[in-house]
Order: sequence, then C-alpha cells, then structure tokens
Amino acid sequence: MKDIQSQPDHRRINIKKVGVKNIAYPITVRDKEKKTQKTVATVNMYVNLPHQFKGTHMSRFVEILNRFHGEINLKSFHLILQEMKNKLQAEAAHMEIEFPYFLKKKSPSTSVGIVEYKCKMHGSLSSVDDLILELHVPISPPSLVKIGHGLPKSLGHWGVAIVRLKFRHFIWIEDIIDMVEKVTCHDCSWAEDEGQEGHTVAALTVESLTKSLGEKLQSNDDLSWFTVTVKNLSEGCSIFASLDSTNEAALQA
Amino acid sequence: MKDIQSQPDHRRINIKKVGVKNIAYPITVRDKEKKTQKTVATVNMYVNLPHQFKGTHMSRFVEILNRFHGEINLKSFHLILQEMKNKLQAEAAHMEIEFPYFLKKKSPSTSVGIVEYKCKMHGSLSSVDDLILELHVPISPPSLVKIGHGLPKSLGHWGVAIVRLKFRHFIWIEDIIDMVEKVTCHDCSWAEDEGQEGHTVAALTVESLTKSLGEKLQSNDDLSWFTVTVKNLSEGCSIFASLDSTNEAALQA
Amino acid sequence: MKDIQSQPDHRRINIKKVGVKNIAYPITVRDKEKKTQKTVATVNMYVNLPHQFKGTHMSRFVEILNRFHGEINLKSFHLILQEMKNKLQAEAAHMEIEFPYFLKKKSPSTSVGIVEYKCKMHGSLSSVDDLILELHVPISPPSLVKIGHGLPKSLGHWGVAIVRLKFRHFIWIEDIIDMVEKVTCHDCSWAEDEGQEGHTVAALTVESLTKSLGEKLQSNDDLSWFTVTVKNLSEGCSIFASLDSTNEAALQA
Amino acid sequence: MKDIQSQPDHRRINIKKVGVKNIAYPITVRDKEKKTQKTVATVNMYVNLPHQFKGTHMSRFVEILNRFHGEINLKSFHLILQEMKNKLQAEAAHMEIEFPYFLKKKSPSTSVGIVEYKCKMHGSLSSVDDLILELHVPISPPSLVKIGHGLPKSLGHWGVAIVRLKFRHFIWIEDIIDMVEKVTCHDCSWAEDEGQEGHTVAALTVESLTKSLGEKLQSNDDLSWFTVTVKNLSEGCSIFASLDSTNEAALQA
Repeated sequence: MKDIQSQPDHRRINIKKVGVKNIAYPITVRDKEKKTQKTVATVNMYVNLPHQFKGTHMSRFVEILNRFHGEINLKSFHLILQEMKNKLQAEAAHMEIEFPYFLKKKSPSTSVGIVEYKCKMHGSLSSVDDLILELHVPISPPSLVKIGHGLPKSLGHWGVAIVRLKFRHFIWIEDIIDMVEKVTCHDCSWAEDEGQEGHTVAALTVESLTKSLGEKLQSNDDLSWFTVTVKNLSEGCSIFASLDSTNEAALQA
Repeated sequence: MKDIQSQPDHRRINIKKVGVKNIAYPITVRDKEKKTQKTVATVNMYVNLPHQFKGTHMSRFVEILNRFHGEINLKSFHLILQEMKNKLQAEAAHMEIEFPYFLKKKSPSTSVGIVEYKCKMHGSLSSVDDLILELHVPISPPSLVKIGHGLPKSLGHWGVAIVRLKFRHFIWIEDIIDMVEKVTCHDCSWAEDEGQEGHTVAALTVESLTKSLGEKLQSNDDLSWFTVTVKNLSEGCSIFASLDSTNEAALQA
Repeated sequence: MKDIQSQPDHRRINIKKVGVKNIAYPITVRDKEKKTQKTVATVNMYVNLPHQFKGTHMSRFVEILNRFHGEINLKSFHLILQEMKNKLQAEAAHMEIEFPYFLKKKSPSTSVGIVEYKCKMHGSLSSVDDLILELHVPISPPSLVKIGHGLPKSLGHWGVAIVRLKFRHFIWIEDIIDMVEKVTCHDCSWAEDEGQEGHTVAALTVESLTKSLGEKLQSNDDLSWFTVTVKNLSEGCSIFASLDSTNEAALQA
Repeated sequence: MKDIQSQPDHRRINIKKVGVKNIAYPITVRDKEKKTQKTVATVNMYVNLPHQFKGTHMSRFVEILNRFHGEINLKSFHLILQEMKNKLQAEAAHMEIEFPYFLKKKSPSTSVGIVEYKCKMHGSLSSVDDLILELHVPISPPSLVKIGHGLPKSLGHWGVAIVRLKFRHFIWIEDIIDMVEKVTCHDCSWAEDEGQEGHTVAALTVESLTKSLGEKLQSNDDLSWFTVTVKNLSEGCSIFASLDSTNEAALQA
C-alpha cells in the first residue's frame, strides 16, 4: 500500500505542530505544606514536524507521560519536553498542563477552608524560564461573603484574577496566591468602606484591580515576565481588563 | 454479511430510546412583536425501538426536521413528533429543542436593549399539553447594574430564574418573561431598600425568590404544571432552590 | 431589618430542593488494586426545605464535606447524607459526585495503560441500594486503534457505553468496567471480522451494542436495577440508544 | 467618594485590553445563495486603555453593536471597530465574533443537506486585511457515512479541518468551504481505495490532510496569510496537526 505520508519531496511543506490535546491524566504536584498534592490534569503535548519527516507516532506522547508516572515539577517538566524532542526527532517540543490546585484556607471568615485555584503550566523546550505558570485566583469582596447566609469563600465570587508568570527563581504556588489575594482583598475592603456611604462595590472595577496587581507583580524581582487579567463574571458574559509586563518595560524606558 | 441487528428472537430486549443528540439547526420561532424570530437551536430527537424492530435509520430524524424547514411552533412541534412516530414505526417520539431567544428591552435603566433568554422546549407525542417550555430569565438587582460603570441589563447578573411550564392555553414567551421579571425586580428592589440600612443584597436569597415565583405561577390558570429553580451563579459553583406545582397541589389538598 | 425568609404562614409554599452545585473537591475513592485512588470531583449537594423552615445555610454543605476529608465510599456516602439531613433539618438529602477514575490497562495492544473512566455516584438518603453508580466506558474497535499510527486505547474512541447501576451487593468499579469491555470488545472484533469482506464497522451499531450490554447486565444478580446507553460520538452531535432493566422485567412477566 | 480609577499619575500603568466577552447576539451575515443568513453569535469586544485614561464604560460596547443591528460584513465590521476606537478614545479596537453558519448540501450521498460550519471572525482596527476568518469544516470519509445505517453528512465526522485566513480580495465563505471539502474528500476516498486491501482509514492522517490543505491554500492568490489545523476528534481527546503560511514563505525563500 502506498504510504501517503512519504510525499514526493517537491511538496516540501512544514507541519508546524502535531500532537494530542485534552488528555485527562492523574498528576502529582509539589505542595508547600503537604509536600505533594495529587490532582487530575488535562494535558496537551505537541512537537513541530520537519517537512522531511514522515509523520509522528501519537501514542509516544502518552508513553512519555507514563514514564514519569505523572510527577509534575519544574525538573520533570523539562525532562519530559527533552524526551519528546528526542523520541519524536522534533526541533521543538511543547506541553500544556491544566489542573485544579486545592488549598485549605484557615481565615476565620471562612469556616470552610478548601478553595480551588485553577492552575496551568505551559512549557516549550528552549529553557526553563520559558515555563509559564498561569493561576486563577477568585476575588470575593467581604460583602459577597454575606450573600446567601454566609457563603464560604469558595462560593460566590465577584470575579477572578488571572496571572501568567515567568520566573527568575522558583516561587511556591501558595506564595503567588497569597500575594494576589493580599492585593485583591485590600482593594475589595477599600471598596467596602466606600460602600458605607452607599456606593458599595461601585468602586470595585476590573481596571483598578488589574492596575493594583500589575504594580505588585512589577515589584517582584523573582519574576521575569507577567500578564494580569481581571474578569468580573456573570451568567451572560464577562467584563475584563488585562496588562502585561512588556508595556511596563516600555514605560520604564 | 450476517446482520447483527436481526438478532435471534430469544434475545427479546427492548431498546427504550434511540436517536440523535446535539444537532445544531437554524430555526424560526414565533415572536409576539416581530411575528417571527430566526435563531439557532440544538436539537435532540429520539424514539423508542420495539424489540422485534431491526434498528432505526438515524438520518431520517434530520430528514423530518428538514421537511419543516426549521419552522418551530406548537403546531409544527406536534406534527414533527407525529411524523417521527410514523416514519420510524415507533410507539413514542420525543424532541428537545434548546435555543437563545432575544428581546429588545426598552426600560430606561438599560440603554442597551437586547437581552438573551435561554429557551428549551421538550415534547413527547401523547398530547400537546405534554409540551414543556423551559425559560431562563436573568435576575439583576438594580445595584448590580451600577457595578462596572452602568452595565447594561444583559451583563452582570446576580443569578437566573429557570421556570418549566405546561400550558392549558397558549402563552407568549414574552408574557412569561414579563411575569417572571416583575416578581424578581420587585424582590430585588425590596432587598435594595433594606440595603439602605446597610444590609444590601443580604435579603436576596434563592429561597425567597423561588417562593415568590412559585406563588405567582400557582395563581396563573393558563398553566397546568410548573417548576421553578433560582440559581445564584458564581465562578466556582452555584447555589439554587427549586419547587414544583405538584407539592403546591399537595398543599391545597 | 425585616427577614424576607420568615414569610407569613399563609404563603405555605414548599421549596423542593435547595443546595449547592458544581463544587470542585479533591476526593479519595476505593481502588481494587491500589486500595485507594485520589482524584478530583464535582459535587452537588441538596436537601428539601419544608415550608415552615426559614431558609438554609449553604456553607454547611461544604462544612459537612470537609468533616469527611473527601473520603468517598459506600459507607461515608451514607453518613454524609445522614449528616446533611440532621444538620439541615431536612426530610431528604441528596448528593451527586462526578469524577474521573483512572486504571492502568496492561493489554498488549496498548503500550499506554492509563485509561480514564468518567464515574458518577448519585445518592439519596432512604437506603444504601438507592445509590446509583454511573460509569462511562470508552468503546474502541480494534481497527480504530490503527488510525493515526497505533493510537493508545485512551485515544480515538468509536463511542462510549454509559451504564447506570443499583447494587444488591458491593461490586468493584474495576469489575463493572471489565464486564462492559468484554462485551463491547467481542462485538467490535465480530464487526471487524465481517470487515474482512469490506463491510468494516458497518455492522457496529449503537442498538446492537446496547442490546448486548443489556443482556449481560440482566444476567448479573448483584444488580437490582440498571440502564445502558451507547453513544456513537462525533463532532457535530451524537447517536445513541438506551434501555433499562424495568422493561426487561416487563418482558419476563 | 474617592474614585479609585483616578489614580495618582506616578502609577503610570497601562491596561492593555479592557472589554466584554461572550455576549450572545443575533446577527445577519452575507450568504452567497440567499443573500443574507440570520444566525446567533458570541461576541468579544475590547480596546486598549491608555494609562492616563480613567477607565472605560462597558455598556458602550454593546450600544455600538446595537447601532449596527447585528449586520455583520467586512464593511460594518470595520465601521464597528472604528466607532469603538472613537467612542472609547482607544488606540486600538478588537472584535471577535463566532457563529454557526449553515449550508444546504445537495450531494446525493446526503439526503439531508443542512450542514453546520463553525465560523469565527477576528478583527483589529489597523486595516481590513487584518481581518482573520476562521472556518471549521467537518471531514467525513465516505465509509463513515455508512456507519449507523447511512448517517447524513452532518453526523459522524472523522475530524475537522480548521482554516484561518487573511484576504487580499473578498472570498465567499461558501467558496472556501468548497475548496477545503474538495481536498479532504479527495484524500478520504483515496484512503478508501487503499482500504479495499484492508488498510482502511489507516492511510488517513492529520499530517497528510494538513499538508494537502496547506498546498491548496498556498496556491490561492486571494489569500495573504493562512493557517491550517486538522483534528481527529474522539471522546477522550483529539489528535491534531497544523501549519501556517509563514513557514511556507520561509521555504520559498
């Protein structure tokens, strides 16, 4: 049978990316307090395919994942990309992993404690600081917590702050979350105080929160790059504002 | 080739439902003001399959839909079910249609006007009043409209009221929406007033809204049956309360 | 401030269900081989609200969940429902838990091994055998495994078999999956053989697979009730067939 | 009340994007045969926010949309972006519109005809040829049509081809779809023929289809830029390959 993959060479066309998307996979990530946390990820893996290459073996992507038994950390992430590049004879390898990360919150306001933070890691081969970490941190003005008879913090959000980061040095997910929550809680309570004069929440905007977070991240030397997006969620649609460190840089200049 | 569908009779096993799900289909529905409104539906169609029957021809479902050129109203809905029953020699036919329904809202508070109402019709053959209409009506306390610099009504909902109805007599979708919005707006502003004393929104609960809507629907003689669910939406999850006319009935007794 | 939840009694309207939906929560379930398996669930919890009752405290649902540290098994499931009923003074309590369950598959055809099975448990208080287990088992004809250069079993499904079960005696999730896969693999390879004459897959239908599974489940005395649905998935929509044990019963009669 | 949006100037932080996402909106698009086609879109609209600017009025986005009564074509698309830029005093304006586009297909193999094509338009202000059109065209090997007793073309896809295009000259959506379907149908039947020797479908890969489509698009002078992605869909995940015109260009060099 003629293999349509071994095309005549005049066809010299590059496949830019080839791979698998949305593989559900159980993973273990590092946890500052409990050492490790088991969760479930959705994984995308792909490589580039040089035009002289005759197609790739999709199953190999998952085989590589298996070889690491779902242990995901900065080191293994890099090794997986390395192995993808070698095993698939590719010029570049990419992996995206999305998973819920759970933290016990002991703040008195919440009797509840377990809060979910959506977490996403995107890595390309080149270098480690090419790893992008994305975190979704819920934003809940104190007043909202009262809605519906004292909702736990994990319920009833005003919106969400989405930060995407590149690192100079390792930072715990927990520390990034704390940093973000300090900023949003401050702005929220500030808006609350205004609220006493009856303007409640009116002062809380996606633009102002985005700027406050931008300032904070900008001052963090462990980060080499970042973007911030703040979304105010609702059923029908969402309102958002975002910025990134590149235009900050432009401003410093 | 042996047809595995013509099974030996001793296998006498009933297929209860067979059909197609999630077909995207352009439809035309009745509009009180504009006579008709074109929108896009997601359609499920299925029939029961008697055990002596040798499998069904899936393509026929869509053929029947085509024959009606997507005209969906009480009459055509019934005719489509009738044709499904005949063409597929089934004892029962079912169709579910879900589509966004749009209305221009002229209320001063909203300069905007176009509001989306998710709408769902579920019909089984037996009789016309076996048609269930489901409507999703956004709930927006006045105060919410202020969030983010005067959001149009179609943005920034506190939650949604979901009513499911069976009719004694025809009612316009528009009239049901008005009825629901009168109730929710009243309760919302009521909660607002309380808010002046600084308890804003705290008084607005899924339970109270559900009960108010239950009372209203109960008093409507055009309805033979209903359920109400009120959801308070948020990123992480939703809080809800629901009731139906059956336990009302129980109460009257 | 007037509490709109303490309504005048003449309003005597029953809330049928009140609770929380779509809470993401880390859980631990029993695993036949590894004893336990950690995964992430989406949880719905709700109770009925008698009309003389003054509204419920949503946060309590999650508090109860926390008290069990996410340990989910037949016993804890029952205890959680019990505690919901007591703490919320409800006449009935309901919990739905959906989670991905992962198994290593050692079959030679797949070098890969890790397969995801969507799993759902729905329980109401009354009794233990009122717990319904729902399992989604991928269906992959051997030929499909060849598509795209030897895809692992977890990729490239023809469709999925969804079984919903009530138990007389405890059964391992693993054993149900094996039972389902034995049936679907048999029918698939059977269709494959026919395929040699060039009719490949044409013999594989949702109806025939549903009937084969119905026969198998019917013969299992550990089950007190079941439903089977087989879906053939595609981008645009899905084709399905389903049956349940009730009409089998009818046939025996 | 202090307006936290009027920040002290030293804070000089740029919001890069601010706007609304996921607005459901009824639109009218051009249709080669029927002149116009009414459908329902999901709309994202956003602008950049210069740091000296004091926040934006979200409701204006929807007001602008209303002013055009949902008429979407190359001309109005450009005018809407223009108006966003002016009304919101922004340096750049962006709009993304996604909608299902329906075509009657008269091919004998399908008695059915109505096929859905997911369509997406992304425009930024700068110039008209900065408008990107994205089309999702289902791929169905002839053999698949046989599965489940002669499925209509709109059911049972092997996968989907996603093309993203920039234009030198206007092209009808219908003509792009025809071009893509000619290529995929040819490759599919080619694979079918091989199938006669029992290798069915094995020859059909995301890589080969991507390359064939890349060749075809490359030869079309009405296009100034394109990307192609071919996905083989399944329940658990999807396999894909993609390329774009930039690396073609590189090759010509």
